[in-house]
Amino acid sequence: MTKKKKTTIILFSGDYDKVMAAYIIANGAAAYDHEVTIFHTFWGLNALRKDENIHVKKGLLEKMFGKLMPRGVNKMGLSKMNFAGFGPKMIRNVMKKHNVLSLPELIEMAKDQGINLVACTMTMDLLGLQKEELLDHVEYAGVAAYLADAEDGNINLFI
Amino acid sequence: MTKKKKTTIILFSGDYDKVMAAYIIANGAAAYDHEVTIFHTFWGLNALRKDENIHVKKGLLEKMFGKLMPRGVNKMGLSKMNFAGFGPKMIRNVMKKHNVLSLPELIEMAKDQGINLVACTMTMDLLGLQKEELLDHVEYAGVAAYLADAEDGNINLFI
Amino acid sequence: MTKKKKTTIILFSGDYDKVMAAYIIANGAAAYDHEVTIFHTFWGLNALRKDENIHVKKGLLEKMFGKLMPRGVNKMGLSKMNFAGFGPKMIRNVMKKHNVLSLPELIEMAKDQGINLVACTMTMDLLGLQKEELLDHVEYAGVAAYLADAEDGNINLFI
Repeated sequence: MTKKKKTTIILFSGDYDKVMAAYIIANGAAAYDHEVTIFHTFWGLNALRKDENIHVKKGLLEKMFGKLMPRGVNKMGLSKMNFAGFGPKMIRNVMKKHNVLSLPELIEMAKDQGINLVACTMTMDLLGLQKEELLDHVEYAGVAAYLADAEDGNINLFI
Repeated sequence: MTKKKKTTIILFSGDYDKVMAAYIIANGAAAYDHEVTIFHTFWGLNALRKDENIHVKKGLLEKMFGKLMPRGVNKMGLSKMNFAGFGPKMIRNVMKKHNVLSLPELIEMAKDQGINLVACTMTMDLLGLQKEELLDHVEYAGVAAYLADAEDGNINLFI
Repeated sequence: MTKKKKTTIILFSGDYDKVMAAYIIANGAAAYDHEVTIFHTFWGLNALRKDENIHVKKGLLEKMFGKLMPRGVNKMGLSKMNFAGFGPKMIRNVMKKHNVLSLPELIEMAKDQGINLVACTMTMDLLGLQKEELLDHVEYAGVAAYLADAEDGNINLFI
């Protein structure tokens, strides 16, 4: 029996285009039978946020950060040519025209393909995000779990 | 016979400094006899654009994106300290002073060393770029080809 | 005897949050007994700058760049939500509250754990940085040394 190949992605960025790149690579790798993990840290955590406002107790600073950060991928901007939100709208239009899956669909597909969606607990603390605010099927771990995954992986990326 | 070592770089960024970093690593790896592929996606595709205006049929949105994105590396900005285009000029001056190869020279060298320069067809569609607008020696592929390259690679980077 | 596992990080970015991510991964890997190297290039070099003003002879352009780039990690901004320097202050406050090590402490710990902190000599030239301006325990090397490290590494990241 051969060992399964492994792809592990650290998703640090919260830009629409970079999150999209991460999820396209991840879904591709899962389709080719890799064991895939996306480790969401810092701004990448926003990809896992529910899009409604969840009421949880927070300090003032955490409340501010929570308000200012995008709730889910549809609120994200592009890393380039954002044009005050026009860029992402345009990209989404072109994606529909070319029958490319939207980002929420790519995340849904990742879940269906059994990709491990992990949220970094340490940066959740830093940004004041709580489990109630994130999607239901998310796992929680720290840098030790990432290293255990990545150290015998085939493809390791930081996005 | 030992297998050749392999370096595979996803070039997502269209910043002058990051493109330069990608091509320096790639040329270095080729010099050390690695099989090297640079997979250009999203803004990284602009590194492969011809610098003249190529007439191709496009929709309105695609035309706009095409106009707004840099045609080739000499039009790119820096990821930091761009100062409205002064930063890249300054970097280019210092490069000349220190006999560092310019970015067009690094791309030429990559071609001469047999580095595979691949353009991601899916993001070409998204940004409205057509084959006529890209350099002549470019190959065209998708995420499956990237994964096949990267999964038994030694060095995999996302830049 | 089994060979030590290896983690090699190219730190290209000079953003507070990305430098923090790099040093957290590096310290984690060292704690799990990896041989770890952080190769600082371009804006990542600023993480190695002493925070006082060091007098060295420079050309005009190099002097300007030196003045405009942050001296050490405490002067760095965030890649997102910087708010004219308020963002990093806020992050540092929350880090203290949650007993997360500060970035200067993470760099000190990296040194104590025997992590190789390497400065890329070619980009030092480009940005006009001299050895006297960088921390004392730094090593100096180029892309060839990076490739030798990374080509048989377990985890390779570009941050």
